[in-house]
Amino acid sequence: MTSSLMTDLYELTMLRAARQAGIADRRCVFEVFVRSLPAGRRYGVLAGTGRVLEAIADFRFDAEDIAYLRSLDVLDEDTLAFLADYRFGGTVLGYEEGELFFPTSPVLRVEGTFAEAVLLETVILSIINHDSSVASVGSRMVTAARGRPCIEMGGRRVHEEAAVAAARAAAIVGFAATSNLAAGQRYGIPVRGTAAHAFTLLFDQEREAFTAQITAQGAGTTVLVDTYDVAEAVRTAVDIAGPELGAVRLDSGDLAEQSRALRAQLDSLGATGTKITATSDLDEYRVEALAGVPVDSFGIGTRLVTGGGHPAPGFVYKLVEREGADGLMHPVGKRSENKSTLGGAKRAFRLGAAGTARAELVLPSAAEIYEFERELMDELDRREASPLWTEATVRELQVPLIVDGEPVETPTPAEQVARARARHEASLAELGLTAEDGPDGHLAIPTITDGLLAAAVLD
Amino acid sequence: MTSSLMTDLYELTMLRAARQAGIADRRCVFEVFVRSLPAGRRYGVLAGTGRVLEAIADFRFDAEDIAYLRSLDVLDEDTLAFLADYRFGGTVLGYEEGELFFPTSPVLRVEGTFAEAVLLETVILSIINHDSSVASVGSRMVTAARGRPCIEMGGRRVHEEAAVAAARAAAIVGFAATSNLAAGQRYGIPVRGTAAHAFTLLFDQEREAFTAQITAQGAGTTVLVDTYDVAEAVRTAVDIAGPELGAVRLDSGDLAEQSRALRAQLDSLGATGTKITATSDLDEYRVEALAGVPVDSFGIGTRLVTGGGHPAPGFVYKLVEREGADGLMHPVGKRSENKSTLGGAKRAFRLGAAGTARAELVLPSAAEIYEFERELMDELDRREASPLWTEATVRELQVPLIVDGEPVETPTPAEQVARARARHEASLAELGLTAEDGPDGHLAIPTITDGLLAAAVLD
Repeated sequence: MTSSLMTDLYELTMLRAARQAGIADRRCVFEVFVRSLPAGRRYGVLAGTGRVLEAIADFRFDAEDIAYLRSLDVLDEDTLAFLADYRFGGTVLGYEEGELFFPTSPVLRVEGTFAEAVLLETVILSIINHDSSVASVGSRMVTAARGRPCIEMGGRRVHEEAAVAAARAAAIVGFAATSNLAAGQRYGIPVRGTAAHAFTLLFDQEREAFTAQITAQGAGTTVLVDTYDVAEAVRTAVDIAGPELGAVRLDSGDLAEQSRALRAQLDSLGATGTKITATSDLDEYRVEALAGVPVDSFGIGTRLVTGGGHPAPGFVYKLVEREGADGLMHPVGKRSENKSTLGGAKRAFRLGAAGTARAELVLPSAAEIYEFERELMDELDRREASPLWTEATVRELQVPLIVDGEPVETPTPAEQVARARARHEASLAELGLTAEDGPDGHLAIPTITDGLLAAAVLD
Repeated sequence: MTSSLMTDLYELTMLRAARQAGIADRRCVFEVFVRSLPAGRRYGVLAGTGRVLEAIADFRFDAEDIAYLRSLDVLDEDTLAFLADYRFGGTVLGYEEGELFFPTSPVLRVEGTFAEAVLLETVILSIINHDSSVASVGSRMVTAARGRPCIEMGGRRVHEEAAVAAARAAAIVGFAATSNLAAGQRYGIPVRGTAAHAFTLLFDQEREAFTAQITAQGAGTTVLVDTYDVAEAVRTAVDIAGPELGAVRLDSGDLAEQSRALRAQLDSLGATGTKITATSDLDEYRVEALAGVPVDSFGIGTRLVTGGGHPAPGFVYKLVEREGADGLMHPVGKRSENKSTLGGAKRAFRLGAAGTARAELVLPSAAEIYEFERELMDELDRREASPLWTEATVRELQVPLIVDGEPVETPTPAEQVARARARHEASLAELGLTAEDGPDGHLAIPTITDGLLAAAVLD
């Protein structure tokens, strides 16, 4: 199964028309960005970059694909021959996976001929939109959990392959584990599980179910206590496992009220080390509402894997610069009524001071970049004596990922996840947000597209 | 790639514990259903059944899977040996794909030993939840379009494999085509495409872009007219293609206002046969708002493939009946505070008269089914003389899909889609809803779980 048909037809018909017009080899720059974030979101989290690189490497049209495309009768043999030989030979730069993004952040840049770059639109957007949707809400959940582990358990609520990618995205933003075995296998993510109501119901008595589970899994297991009566179930479980009982899971009812009662009951039974894990339609708001409540970990499903009400972050793949008849590169952008695009291949920097991010600098042209470098770098030099300015940071956000068709690095899937997780943790720390700030608010930092304004941000 | 690890860990640890307790071979019945529909939804549409049957057939643990599971150190060798030999040998019944569902409709029933049935929970729910989410909203969009073709174009907004399944679900509920090539290849769905802004921007002049497209694709192509100035673009396109120009696409701005202006302009240029296709964040409400507006077809993306605000319909997989120590089958159901389950293996019937559905009958026990058959069938017999009652219909909704591990039929993927589309069209017609009823409302028909009430519905 190649990734090449995970593509919209129009990319191929545009290719054909551009080839016939003789300009399919014009050098182009496409950028991936969002125009805005959902209301209340302070930042977004980029995820999927590692999967994009794999999809680009796999992007080949095999004989069966070509036969199918021929059968559509919309492409000529010349275009089909081009596709049969297709291999991406261009250059890709992008934000590191796990990095934060803001409106207009150019999280991925694809440089190449029109022919080679236009074909990648759909598969790149599918991956980046999906994975970033999960990562962006997952990061908020981890913050709301205030250090208590979050376990991804949402696989059953989404497409079976999306489930695996969702577990990967959740791990990147700090989830401690997943229930999904395929995600464990592919990405080395720790897997965890408890038990379902079906297990308890299979037995004639709840006591028999708990005995069987504790016998098989050991006292450290997590038992599900709300199939019949919670208090009765807890007594039974502690009676069987003793105070070594690992954890109890609550999956219904008023979680705050029940958790407090559960904690008191467990303590009264001497099971002071037994943990409480809460599940049941949690999101960042419900987790936030459980601050101070004796819940030790969270199992989070639907709202995580479906992007917390924002299942598609709105990433687009836009031509921003291309070679003209004069052989020079020109910025381009549509002027549509409510969706105009800022032309020009951009460079992006996270500007900060003393470990704190202050602005997202997205510079849309060589002239702006020159102004920025001249003004800001001079400014930084001049102020070097100031303690604030010596700690100033200017991090360039785009790193090379593929150069002339060759991947810069080939980390294993597990390495990709580990690196992205570290990147996310470091970048999030720069925002200085805490759980006390609550899930919603204004954009954490402004996006600045004017090089001359950059210095002002740090004043 | 097998489907067997698209599974939550707890299914395997429950299996282990049940095996050790000696009751893993108890006969069980699991049912898939939703507790409710989203507010405003009159009905849901089941999709994914065909994909579920493929996933069950592929559900094998290969050597690599077993090695991975062994590495987790939570399963014993006895359980691993069972998994290595696993092959589903039970029976599956279900609603036909494309059928409507209502709260408690048992859209899928899995009968088998606990061991063989419990493992299928995650992959079944992933598929049914995802595909039904798209089908349920897509059906509303097709109704709102009032016979004008809808094209699925959302692949770039969701996981790349979910994109293909979404196109399949959209085709089932009446979408005319998809932009996704993989969906075209796998399911025989017609593929369509227009052009992107990048294509126009690639050229030095819009006229050159249109000339290239019309030369390559013929005058019947669809040109995108909002890259610069819409009126100017339309003049240019008609100038090049003549009145044979196939269609123009609008992707921004006020679609109603622009469509009217476009229609007037096209007509004034003599292009009276040129169609207008609208895209840009459409959903059933925006399509409804374009009733009476001269738009000839709709390209629908994000809101379709993300389930129109309801990305996960909430299907659950619940143990409803199982063998007890006495060797007899017993209905079971949890009694959790806000999520109790109606026990008992159910049979379901769509009850109607004169081609109109009146109720969803979900009978939770043999006794209820007996009452229903006795009361209602007698009633139908008695009233046969009445013209209304001669047309009464009692359609049993669950059909056998797998019997003792063997699929009842093995339609091709394209046949699955065609059949499901026919089923959906027929079942939707029975509700008697029209676009004039608007997208939202009460549940179209009640769900009745008491056999004695069945006759009353038809009075």
